[in-house]
Amino acid sequence: MTIEQAKNELARLQVQMYAYRYALSQISLDAATVGPKDTVEGRGVALSVLAGALYDISMKDETISLLESLREKSDELNELEKKEVEELLRSHDELSKIPREDYLAYRALLNEADAVWHKAKLEDDFEAFLPCLEKIVDFNRKMAAWIHPDKAPYDVLLDRYERGLTMEKADAFFEAVRKSVVPLLAAVTAAPQVDDSFLHQNFPVEKQRILSDRLMEMQHIDRGHCVIGETEHPFTSGFNHADVRITTHYYEDNFSDSMYSVIHEGGHALYELGIDPALDYTVLGGGVSMGIHESQSRLFENIIGRSRGYVKNLLPILQEIFPDQMKGVTAEALYKALNKVEPSLIRTQADELTYSLHIMVRYEIEKRLIDGTLECKDVPEEWNRLYKEYLGIDVPNDKEGCLQDTHWSGGMIGYFPSYALGSAYGAQMVEKMKEDFDFDACLDQGDLLPIIAWLKEKIHRYGSSKDPSWILDNCLQAEFDPSCYTRYLEKKYSDIYGL
Amino acid sequence: MTIEQAKNELARLQVQMYAYRYALSQISLDAATVGPKDTVEGRGVALSVLAGALYDISMKDETISLLESLREKSDELNELEKKEVEELLRSHDELSKIPREDYLAYRALLNEADAVWHKAKLEDDFEAFLPCLEKIVDFNRKMAAWIHPDKAPYDVLLDRYERGLTMEKADAFFEAVRKSVVPLLAAVTAAPQVDDSFLHQNFPVEKQRILSDRLMEMQHIDRGHCVIGETEHPFTSGFNHADVRITTHYYEDNFSDSMYSVIHEGGHALYELGIDPALDYTVLGGGVSMGIHESQSRLFENIIGRSRGYVKNLLPILQEIFPDQMKGVTAEALYKALNKVEPSLIRTQADELTYSLHIMVRYEIEKRLIDGTLECKDVPEEWNRLYKEYLGIDVPNDKEGCLQDTHWSGGMIGYFPSYALGSAYGAQMVEKMKEDFDFDACLDQGDLLPIIAWLKEKIHRYGSSKDPSWILDNCLQAEFDPSCYTRYLEKKYSDIYGL
Repeated sequence: MTIEQAKNELARLQVQMYAYRYALSQISLDAATVGPKDTVEGRGVALSVLAGALYDISMKDETISLLESLREKSDELNELEKKEVEELLRSHDELSKIPREDYLAYRALLNEADAVWHKAKLEDDFEAFLPCLEKIVDFNRKMAAWIHPDKAPYDVLLDRYERGLTMEKADAFFEAVRKSVVPLLAAVTAAPQVDDSFLHQNFPVEKQRILSDRLMEMQHIDRGHCVIGETEHPFTSGFNHADVRITTHYYEDNFSDSMYSVIHEGGHALYELGIDPALDYTVLGGGVSMGIHESQSRLFENIIGRSRGYVKNLLPILQEIFPDQMKGVTAEALYKALNKVEPSLIRTQADELTYSLHIMVRYEIEKRLIDGTLECKDVPEEWNRLYKEYLGIDVPNDKEGCLQDTHWSGGMIGYFPSYALGSAYGAQMVEKMKEDFDFDACLDQGDLLPIIAWLKEKIHRYGSSKDPSWILDNCLQAEFDPSCYTRYLEKKYSDIYGL
Repeated sequence: MTIEQAKNELARLQVQMYAYRYALSQISLDAATVGPKDTVEGRGVALSVLAGALYDISMKDETISLLESLREKSDELNELEKKEVEELLRSHDELSKIPREDYLAYRALLNEADAVWHKAKLEDDFEAFLPCLEKIVDFNRKMAAWIHPDKAPYDVLLDRYERGLTMEKADAFFEAVRKSVVPLLAAVTAAPQVDDSFLHQNFPVEKQRILSDRLMEMQHIDRGHCVIGETEHPFTSGFNHADVRITTHYYEDNFSDSMYSVIHEGGHALYELGIDPALDYTVLGGGVSMGIHESQSRLFENIIGRSRGYVKNLLPILQEIFPDQMKGVTAEALYKALNKVEPSLIRTQADELTYSLHIMVRYEIEKRLIDGTLECKDVPEEWNRLYKEYLGIDVPNDKEGCLQDTHWSGGMIGYFPSYALGSAYGAQMVEKMKEDFDFDACLDQGDLLPIIAWLKEKIHRYGSSKDPSWILDNCLQAEFDPSCYTRYLEKKYSDIYGL
């Protein structure tokens, strides 16, 4: 095979893999959005075959020999091709350590677990979900040992969502956050409380759908390439740079919950939409890590979406859509209400300050589930104990407790820390943006384009063609420093609560 | 390979094929329902790979030798397995005559054509759609010649949707219908007209969605296994007996249009939902032919959905959902309004009497496109001429003319006659049902269960495990006789119009 032929084969291999990933994502998206509820079996049969075919493409001899021969000739490859070969070999290497049968059984389990979790959450029935959770934890523990028998299993899992992240680093990070957040929270709780009663009225879903459209417009999301759906748990699914889906969940008694889901998922969507089209149909398409991904979503949700400037520009839109409910509300009152700090049960509804504490609960539990010091059956008890310890609140049921998130049923153990880490990345990115242009003026003028352009230039366009650490260096031009995040929180909440 | 191993391989082969069909249908469904509009390219790349993989599974040597060895040992197979082998060999034989490259280029073309047609219809721009139409017609003509070089190409295409149907049979059938419908239509048009003005008011889409739910309830469609979506053109997509999707299109100024789409697609859905679960994941799952499929949909839409009994039971529901618009309307007035005969532009909105004339226009055009006596560029002119000749109306634009249907952009040339044929099958099925139980009493009491049970028993459960002709024999216990249909139309419309 000539080098040109081999390069063509490399492209063809990736197009093939893209097609299977595309099909698998479509099927999962359908299941989570519009698919009828009692359709798990037929979906599982299809998923199993397609996931198996994708596994086989990665594992077959021709694939390996192609990749190895290209690695040997790497001086004849361009930078992208080199990275493609490297990534393909890395994932092949990982996959080759997981027995095919176990891999497919796990895919089938996740398909089933999604339906089981939905029902268990609805019916507040942890027992019903327990067997799935046990199998998922067990597989993740085994998988970690297969991939890196020499490493602590939870370190292996963390690394899958944010390359280079370890418990040691996460512990240090959470410790720094805790040191700042806990006293700040105590001070805020002791201060006079913010009135957010006007947020708790009836907001018809139909009107909230209109709000979602307006929010996506404010975020400059091209609707020809991105639609919004409705799911139990909001998420983003990107097929290629020109086809991204976000979802939300509407609650009639609270528009801000869905509003911040839309802005959050919109941040993810902008990342996927901003990736260089040349990376489509390769393994380098898609965001590079969950930490970087969450930096984008959390940045839009909080630093932008809960800023004075953004809220000021949001108010007339809210008053247009909800004239009765928003009558007489001032920009400052809305800003304070949307930033009200209140330890609460649900992570996705948490204020910016207590948010990290929700993540820490999950982090502690995952760590112990994987190292075997906590059994799955004891998760509710431990969950409730930690919510009491970290947030000072009693968890009345598992539906609003350990069954609230979709991550574990989706097999995503090791994902949660990315949210907190992403928040901190985002805060530091904003410090850097402020050096480059008048960030606050953009918010004040309701013009997010310069911000989106900066993020696209520094982060989005690279997709997965650079490592997360390269991306961070490229946009921060400095070491990652969690104190940007804690300083941001201290400044913001001292101001709001007059500390 | 032992016979047991071969049987297992046969099952495995079909599960594989099912998975690819499942993925392809999911992707097409997404495109037609919720997918963002500017996403054709990335979808096309994925479809191409997956369709190619399915083609390769059908064509590979192991598949053929398995099927041929099973055919040789057919006395060791049960009836279903025999039929599976027969169907697989038949489709393999057909596929083997279509060059892989042409097959995949055509799949890619259909993906593109769907988007082009959507836009062309929206913008009333036939010229934009013309190149796609030309390529689709050209491929269908070539495909027919590849498959059966000795037959008239349009006969080959008709046979794909209703096995055994030929132009000779279709001509005779349409001639019989024409002989009855044309004088009947003349008499109806001369009679005093029905008042249907109350159908043309504002019916908010939100309320129409509620009506759809109620209609599906009346039709006993299990929502755990069937959901409704919204598309430009209504259709049904069945994945397996436990997962079926229907779609509709809402118009604010007319609820009956979507209402009859829902009942029509509901008829298709009941067929798919009623198939024996043992046929899932085999080539015998799914309805057997479009003629039989349309018999179910048209039967529910018209013979049931436009009957006095059904309409009587529908009225209180309409009055509950649209209290202002339906105030003071009597069951008889609603029955007459919903059966008003009026030559019109849009097939899916046509009354039962003029409906066949819409089909005849399409049949004539398809016949001539395929035999080469009509060029694609002349379709609008010919369409408009035939609408004037058959229905006496002027077509103001192509949007409401030859661009109205999705079939040609979907490559479905030869499909349209199934609608008219299905209507006639349905009328004869009802004559047979009336021998077995009190059909009219069921409608009068608003109890469709005995009808659904009869159809499931005689038709649905067999899926594609029997030929269409066997299914017809099984439920009609007689030769197909179009006069049942024409008698039904004559009786119904003579009554309504007092002829």
